[in-house]
Amino acid sequence: MSLDPTSLAAERERLAPALAYVEHHVDRFVERLQRLARMPSVSAQAQSLPETADVVEELAQAVGVETEQVPLDGGPPLVIGRVPGSGPRTLQLYNHYDVQPEDPLDLWDSDPFAAELRDGRLWGRGVSDNKGNLVARLCALEAWRQTLGELPLTVSVLFEGEEEIGSPHLHQFTSTARGRRIVTVDGCIWEAGYKDPTGRPTISLGCKGDVYVELRARSANMDLHSSWASVVPNAAWRLTWALATLKDPTTHRCLIPGFYDRVLEPNARSLELADREPLEADEYRELFGIDGFVHGWDGGEARRHLLFDPTCTISGLTSGYQGPGSKTVLPADATAKVDFRLVPDQDPAEIIRLLRRHLDEQGYADVEIVEIEGEGERAARTDPDAPIVGAVVETARAMYGKEPLLLPTMPGTGPQFVLCGQFGVPAVGTGVGNAQSNNHAPNENIIVADFVEGIKHMLWLFDRFGRSPA
Amino acid sequence: MSLDPTSLAAERERLAPALAYVEHHVDRFVERLQRLARMPSVSAQAQSLPETADVVEELAQAVGVETEQVPLDGGPPLVIGRVPGSGPRTLQLYNHYDVQPEDPLDLWDSDPFAAELRDGRLWGRGVSDNKGNLVARLCALEAWRQTLGELPLTVSVLFEGEEEIGSPHLHQFTSTARGRRIVTVDGCIWEAGYKDPTGRPTISLGCKGDVYVELRARSANMDLHSSWASVVPNAAWRLTWALATLKDPTTHRCLIPGFYDRVLEPNARSLELADREPLEADEYRELFGIDGFVHGWDGGEARRHLLFDPTCTISGLTSGYQGPGSKTVLPADATAKVDFRLVPDQDPAEIIRLLRRHLDEQGYADVEIVEIEGEGERAARTDPDAPIVGAVVETARAMYGKEPLLLPTMPGTGPQFVLCGQFGVPAVGTGVGNAQSNNHAPNENIIVADFVEGIKHMLWLFDRFGRSPA
Repeated sequence: MSLDPTSLAAERERLAPALAYVEHHVDRFVERLQRLARMPSVSAQAQSLPETADVVEELAQAVGVETEQVPLDGGPPLVIGRVPGSGPRTLQLYNHYDVQPEDPLDLWDSDPFAAELRDGRLWGRGVSDNKGNLVARLCALEAWRQTLGELPLTVSVLFEGEEEIGSPHLHQFTSTARGRRIVTVDGCIWEAGYKDPTGRPTISLGCKGDVYVELRARSANMDLHSSWASVVPNAAWRLTWALATLKDPTTHRCLIPGFYDRVLEPNARSLELADREPLEADEYRELFGIDGFVHGWDGGEARRHLLFDPTCTISGLTSGYQGPGSKTVLPADATAKVDFRLVPDQDPAEIIRLLRRHLDEQGYADVEIVEIEGEGERAARTDPDAPIVGAVVETARAMYGKEPLLLPTMPGTGPQFVLCGQFGVPAVGTGVGNAQSNNHAPNENIIVADFVEGIKHMLWLFDRFGRSPA
Repeated sequence: MSLDPTSLAAERERLAPALAYVEHHVDRFVERLQRLARMPSVSAQAQSLPETADVVEELAQAVGVETEQVPLDGGPPLVIGRVPGSGPRTLQLYNHYDVQPEDPLDLWDSDPFAAELRDGRLWGRGVSDNKGNLVARLCALEAWRQTLGELPLTVSVLFEGEEEIGSPHLHQFTSTARGRRIVTVDGCIWEAGYKDPTGRPTISLGCKGDVYVELRARSANMDLHSSWASVVPNAAWRLTWALATLKDPTTHRCLIPGFYDRVLEPNARSLELADREPLEADEYRELFGIDGFVHGWDGGEARRHLLFDPTCTISGLTSGYQGPGSKTVLPADATAKVDFRLVPDQDPAEIIRLLRRHLDEQGYADVEIVEIEGEGERAARTDPDAPIVGAVVETARAMYGKEPLLLPTMPGTGPQFVLCGQFGVPAVGTGVGNAQSNNHAPNENIIVADFVEGIKHMLWLFDRFGRSPA
């Protein structure tokens, strides 16, 4: 694929009716997203998931997708579908209709499920991660079909309802012959992408894996008066000591023996992509209110560590008295949520085994490991030279008028290995988020203008990937 | 004082009308306690305290105490009062009308403020610690005055409303000339006492001090997606690492340099009292559901450590996501409640300074220390040879028909230094609790029969301490 000015102008002219259609229907498209964002589809709490699948299916059918719900044993259904096109290629759109929990509620400026439009942004849980992307892609299909007719390629959609809890049932679909056939396509547009703090769109090739556990200490059959502290075991201490053996406060390395054994060092091409742009240290310092990155890393070092390091993160701590003032209690129970982000070729099940062995060896056999999300997820990578990568990068450049930032992998996690990686399907992340979208945090938001650009980018991509030689 | 069989019989005969009065009014006395126990006077949350002071004053007046409320600047009032008697001695009754927070609510079998009577017990927050004792003492005053007339000694009462948060304003009273005069008496019956698992009443001489802090780590201005974990600081890790430097998991010793410097080793008399009875290891194993005491201590070692060791206790942990399932968040905030029990002559203010210096030296200058209870409290001791000690022990022996367990100090804390210790007033703890009273925990309770015995014990004590030669 090449991008000379002549073909770019021709392309823009060919797309003009569809792009104009988008501009004329912004309000309606935003309302469509508001409808979906008002569904409180928190997968961690199995909340409103079948109802949300129904809404998604209805929205997809409304833009001409031939849809189907695929039931999963133990989880909410997939919504899959196709829009047949004229060309030989098939492009898959992967999104999820579930969202992260909305707490802590008191830090939101508006109801997380009100999808309030304010100051040019849409605010609500999931608008960035990733209902905004799901809806933008459906809106692109509508705009194309209403103005340009048949698509130049077949578009296949796969929307799931458990991405935020590690897609524990998705493998049921991809392990069937039919499922394998459906997902083995020429390229997959992954769920999300974000503008960096300088406003450039980021495009990501691959993602990390994840395994999420709860560590539980229990020291007695009930909370006791803390005057017992000198002789009765304390669950909060047991947990604190056990946690402290997991990660080095100085090097920030995980201390579980064997944790790094299977880590594939990034290849030269990945390092080259990572090194093109350091993280904007000053921007993030201000944005996140931090003194700097851990270990004093500069922006270049931080970019590499962000993309290529596996992590060991305390995501939550609970024990004893948590109210105002004091309560002199000796806690009987203490729990920590611990999130491990994995890189190729770490194996989630092996990480759990290593963690168990480590805790036992350190004297914390009493600290229980509860696996929250079944088997965990493996990391995935996409070949930077795959045609879909070039198509996404070039159309982003054309659409956004800026050189996109191509990243060799996302620091986040998704079921990319199970859906694409294991079948050799290249997956490319792009989307409508911004550097302050606050994914997984209070005041999640997207900028409406970014949503509109995301729709238009998909139109460019359908055209470019559909028409370019295979 | 001596206790020959003749005088014991004479004493019992003299007290008979009052003891019979108690038996006839058990139901009414329990209802009186229920009324007080239904006041949700949680001092940590400044809840219902003035209202509860009014109820306490009304109950005291109803049994003939000349009462007065003493306002304290920044805290709920003291209720003080006197019942003048014929003899030269003055006995002080110290109790508190505040209670610990009632959470976790879901572990209670009945509403913590319903004061439900069930299976021969009264269940509710504060019935043991220590509204049951407060009311038992008022009931003893009523029984005496209704049957025997004038008391043989003057009884002074002092009821406060902030014991459970460290009595931060009580010193306002004891630092005035009038306050000093009122509390400088011949002996003080301290708030509480409990039967041990074998059913013997315990009598305690002195108590530990306490200083309670919240440690707070803050790593960013908001919770972030945990994919940032490899480069952005995590408050939960900062707090965990900082906490782990405070206490050794193997020796269970506090690791803050200087923490033990001012500790007065217990003297021979204290050790002798402590060594009379080991802790009943098997009983506590079953009662608390523990494998054993920390460090593998046997009952004798555990008794000494329980009484004489200062402690460093995590009483609560809070950070990040604490709901069901998973949320892959990088917490911006993490807090721990940390409770230090102190022994003579540790100084609460110095402990805070040592803690601060230690955290700074360990690299945790970013971890903030918030003092929850003002200045903290110092430990206190009572001379085992003081006349009030003999009177309480001998009357307990007479009343309960068992040899009481005299302990050189309580493992718990109270304002004994500020109220008694600093004026040389001997204080003796005795009361109506049992080994499963669940103080500070769900399902707090007292056995009604113990409540009745506690009332009778006070009648014996008024008689013995009032009539014995000074």
